[in-house]
Amino acid sequence: MPAQSTQEHSVLIRNRKPWHGMPGELFGRQDVFETDLDIFFYRHWILVGVTADVPEPGDVSTIDIGRASILIVRDDDEQVRAFRNTCRHRGARLKEPGKSTVGMLVCPYHQWTYDLSGELRHTSHMGTEFESKCKSLRPVHLKVVGGLIFVCLSEEAPEDIATLESTMAPRLAPYDLTHAKIAFESEIIENGNWKLVLENNRECYHCAGTHPELTASFLPEDFGFCEAGLTEQGRQALAEYRTRITAANASWDRDGLISSPVEHLDTDVTTLFRTQRLVIAGHGESQTMDTKVASTRLLGDASRRDLGDTHLWTHSSWSHVMSDHAVISYCIPLAPDKTLVRSKWLVHPDAVEGVDYDVETLKAVWVATNAQDASLVAITHQGTQDPGYEPGPFSQFTESYVEKFSRWYAARLAAHGV
Amino acid sequence: MPAQSTQEHSVLIRNRKPWHGMPGELFGRQDVFETDLDIFFYRHWILVGVTADVPEPGDVSTIDIGRASILIVRDDDEQVRAFRNTCRHRGARLKEPGKSTVGMLVCPYHQWTYDLSGELRHTSHMGTEFESKCKSLRPVHLKVVGGLIFVCLSEEAPEDIATLESTMAPRLAPYDLTHAKIAFESEIIENGNWKLVLENNRECYHCAGTHPELTASFLPEDFGFCEAGLTEQGRQALAEYRTRITAANASWDRDGLISSPVEHLDTDVTTLFRTQRLVIAGHGESQTMDTKVASTRLLGDASRRDLGDTHLWTHSSWSHVMSDHAVISYCIPLAPDKTLVRSKWLVHPDAVEGVDYDVETLKAVWVATNAQDASLVAITHQGTQDPGYEPGPFSQFTESYVEKFSRWYAARLAAHGV
Amino acid sequence: MPAQSTQEHSVLIRNRKPWHGMPGELFGRQDVFETDLDIFFYRHWILVGVTADVPEPGDVSTIDIGRASILIVRDDDEQVRAFRNTCRHRGARLKEPGKSTVGMLVCPYHQWTYDLSGELRHTSHMGTEFESKCKSLRPVHLKVVGGLIFVCLSEEAPEDIATLESTMAPRLAPYDLTHAKIAFESEIIENGNWKLVLENNRECYHCAGTHPELTASFLPEDFGFCEAGLTEQGRQALAEYRTRITAANASWDRDGLISSPVEHLDTDVTTLFRTQRLVIAGHGESQTMDTKVASTRLLGDASRRDLGDTHLWTHSSWSHVMSDHAVISYCIPLAPDKTLVRSKWLVHPDAVEGVDYDVETLKAVWVATNAQDASLVAITHQGTQDPGYEPGPFSQFTESYVEKFSRWYAARLAAHGV
Repeated sequence: MPAQSTQEHSVLIRNRKPWHGMPGELFGRQDVFETDLDIFFYRHWILVGVTADVPEPGDVSTIDIGRASILIVRDDDEQVRAFRNTCRHRGARLKEPGKSTVGMLVCPYHQWTYDLSGELRHTSHMGTEFESKCKSLRPVHLKVVGGLIFVCLSEEAPEDIATLESTMAPRLAPYDLTHAKIAFESEIIENGNWKLVLENNRECYHCAGTHPELTASFLPEDFGFCEAGLTEQGRQALAEYRTRITAANASWDRDGLISSPVEHLDTDVTTLFRTQRLVIAGHGESQTMDTKVASTRLLGDASRRDLGDTHLWTHSSWSHVMSDHAVISYCIPLAPDKTLVRSKWLVHPDAVEGVDYDVETLKAVWVATNAQDASLVAITHQGTQDPGYEPGPFSQFTESYVEKFSRWYAARLAAHGV
Repeated sequence: MPAQSTQEHSVLIRNRKPWHGMPGELFGRQDVFETDLDIFFYRHWILVGVTADVPEPGDVSTIDIGRASILIVRDDDEQVRAFRNTCRHRGARLKEPGKSTVGMLVCPYHQWTYDLSGELRHTSHMGTEFESKCKSLRPVHLKVVGGLIFVCLSEEAPEDIATLESTMAPRLAPYDLTHAKIAFESEIIENGNWKLVLENNRECYHCAGTHPELTASFLPEDFGFCEAGLTEQGRQALAEYRTRITAANASWDRDGLISSPVEHLDTDVTTLFRTQRLVIAGHGESQTMDTKVASTRLLGDASRRDLGDTHLWTHSSWSHVMSDHAVISYCIPLAPDKTLVRSKWLVHPDAVEGVDYDVETLKAVWVATNAQDASLVAITHQGTQDPGYEPGPFSQFTESYVEKFSRWYAARLAAHGV
Repeated sequence: MPAQSTQEHSVLIRNRKPWHGMPGELFGRQDVFETDLDIFFYRHWILVGVTADVPEPGDVSTIDIGRASILIVRDDDEQVRAFRNTCRHRGARLKEPGKSTVGMLVCPYHQWTYDLSGELRHTSHMGTEFESKCKSLRPVHLKVVGGLIFVCLSEEAPEDIATLESTMAPRLAPYDLTHAKIAFESEIIENGNWKLVLENNRECYHCAGTHPELTASFLPEDFGFCEAGLTEQGRQALAEYRTRITAANASWDRDGLISSPVEHLDTDVTTLFRTQRLVIAGHGESQTMDTKVASTRLLGDASRRDLGDTHLWTHSSWSHVMSDHAVISYCIPLAPDKTLVRSKWLVHPDAVEGVDYDVETLKAVWVATNAQDASLVAITHQGTQDPGYEPGPFSQFTESYVEKFSRWYAARLAAHGV
């Protein structure tokens, strides 16, 4: 009898005890990984970049998503488009991962040549009867929301991306991320399943013990607590917290800045997301080591530094937008136990490095936080693969979004017939 | 028709020709590897260390066994205990592989805190109704025999470990390995299946041609020969050998030292082992390059240097205990074609490096021997995976323990329903 | 529903659209790889070297083919033989990959000793009744054709190797490759399936855009064109090409040199091959950067430098034999996405490096060409694994041999019951 059971994916999910972790096989099995990739990364909308990745016509950003690869292109009319990165002839990759600038997209194999709208413009040796019209690059659904690029690789893309768009567009508009520039990018590979990367991101129970850099800018009460268990000191802190939140929200309201939380997390939702404007602790300005802005040239037309943190997370991404900079992160599964996390730091297009901002200061908090999370995800992945692992209980006060993510995950699998 | 057949594990074993090697698939297939790991490393007693790994209260030795990981801990009452190395909350590893010293066992993820008896002592954010009693660390069966640590990861541990204990405790007692210290440790990864590592260890047919360092201390007749095929010179050597063995045994008998072989190798045995006190060749003292003691401070209360080699092997370990030092080795399968071999050299706790012993001298024989065996195991693993491989005949004179191991292996699989 | 379908190998092949690429699963799936290895590398004749690999009695060349390994040996009577590289005792590899010279073949494990005809000559400890006659090394079918070594690992070897032999022996005879020497060898690992390596080699549509070094010596019309689509300039070039070919063939005819193409490519053929003497462009002498001979000491008894390029390809090899040197290449699959390509440059045995030839000049064209092809194969393998990949159309003018290879591949699978 093999150590690794071969229970059905669906049975494993249905049998998850509510408010408990997933069984280890959902993190470790190759077949589950393949199914996850297919459903959650090929058939759902996923964040894969920002318009600042392709600022000029002819700019190309090539992104691998599992075995798939796509080209994000800015065409000659400034429109951002996405195509499958496979030549229609013998299938060769047109571009390797990374960024480049081109006039036309020329396949390196036999020089089939496509324009930036994806049309096949030139081939040799195909004869006089060859119909090149049917051999345009295959397009990929693309939606830009406030400068964030979402794509969906399936034939039919889920329609409720519209909810994310209508919610986020007005919140992001003041920051004008569409014209922001990338000040820094990072890529790390976390040695754990993508769902553990996400679960880690969905709770801040672990923050106090792990993230000294990040917690400087966090109000701990934002991440949950057991009111019944508070000490006198805790109750007093809670009252102060509530006073501070009320004041901040009132101040933002007066400036027409939307702060209220929106949760689109139910099990019937296809495009999962949550957003809220969070108060920043300390000096109240930005997610930096000293909680002050890292860039003195604020984003968009911002006129005040205390805009809080407009936080957005989806099933594969997490973003923080502050008055002076934004940090946009997303993950791509590479293997059951390997997940790529890519982060981009955005500042005002006219912000000058060394004058308006210092890159080290700008990136310090999230570079440290990502590295700390990678370590936690790795030891958790290992532990969940142990034959002695039993899923344990979530804290109802600080891990409710992990529970919600787990339920949504199960519902989405069911919706796709798993 | 695929090159690799998909015959059942059980069929492959039943069809092994007696006194012939196993079919190659039993060494190379991933499913066989998983089953082996489950049965022979999760459900049998295995040697995983020595009490000298955790000499003081609070000392922790973390050992990975396949996907499992365990903590060997010396608690505040000096008792050695073993636990599963997975937090009862989200499953994170409490400790990475290796050794450390702690006051409490604190999970790096959310700081759930266990004492050295495994009890959960502290959690935050779990609310007032959380029952921490049910969330102690999961214990692992542990048995210390003469300083050697055996564990069993199954719920119910085989009872015939008692035979090993009653046999070995009096033989090991004089050496007091319980209080010995580790003078050197080594880890190598052999590029072959764990059963090939064991088969290699079960015969000394290969010694003469491969292990010049080791054979200096071996009487070759100990490892089998064909009496009918001996030359006149061989017959004379045999007579001398027999005289020498008789004399040594009589001398050990007079000092109350047990020398006789014990074989617990039958197919109905769960805890396989063999022990015997072997005469050492040359100067007769120790398994060193010059066959003299490497440590002048003898183990325990030993008063003579010619105590021979008290040899013990199990299905996953081999140990040699001499008057001056002991070498304890065990293997852990990592993959069908990768096996970790860990060795520990023990000396008297008061022996001083550079004064009583020189580490290079102490370790020379077995470091060289392990490296030589690793090379043989690698080329044998490769050869057995060749579609042109046919299991060949064992020598009935020098490979009978390979045959016995093969039979026991088959019987244990059958006992577990394979 | 997993992203990777699990359609039967046979269905995938039957459903290939004629004159279109194979479905991506035939390049990427592990089970297809195993089947390919079994059928096309264990049951077909494959080129694995040249007699110059083992020039003297006692020379051994060890070649791994998948999980199999063989010894090519020149015995004491100068005969070239092939054996399975597994000891008949415990299966150990007798030799590691590479070349060596021996008196006898001695197993490193227990010193079983075989002579160069494969007979077991010596064992120790096997007892007086051991029958060593049944334990000779297992022979492998071997056929030398004009110095090229072909082997077949199956019990019964396909008989139509005779067609290749009768075709190639007279064409290769004048070059006396049997006594040539190896001036240079290279090994590269291409990151793609072996069939993509072969498809790449079967067409020169990609040459103009990729291989500046190689195309210097090629007449582009040799690789196909659409006559209806030619410009006036193209038509004129075609007329010149035809004049040149006619003249060259007439000249070779006069010297009794065979030039005509032979295609043994039909779907009922087991031993696939094609040969032709191609005219070399430029100075017309050799596949070098300047199209002149790289070795002034010509091969065999050649008396003229313009012998063209006697080209031979099989389902796993491609060779070019010119007046001054030959380049013999073959591939061995290592994994679905890894293929070893080994090339050997042969010159006259008396040619002196630094006097008659310069190694850099000799190897420049094909070292560059192999590296360029490796890059194309890698991006094509990746693209074919994309869920968005759809096999595209072959050019009927330049990719007809890719189509023929695809048909033959399908027929061979069917012939083996797939």
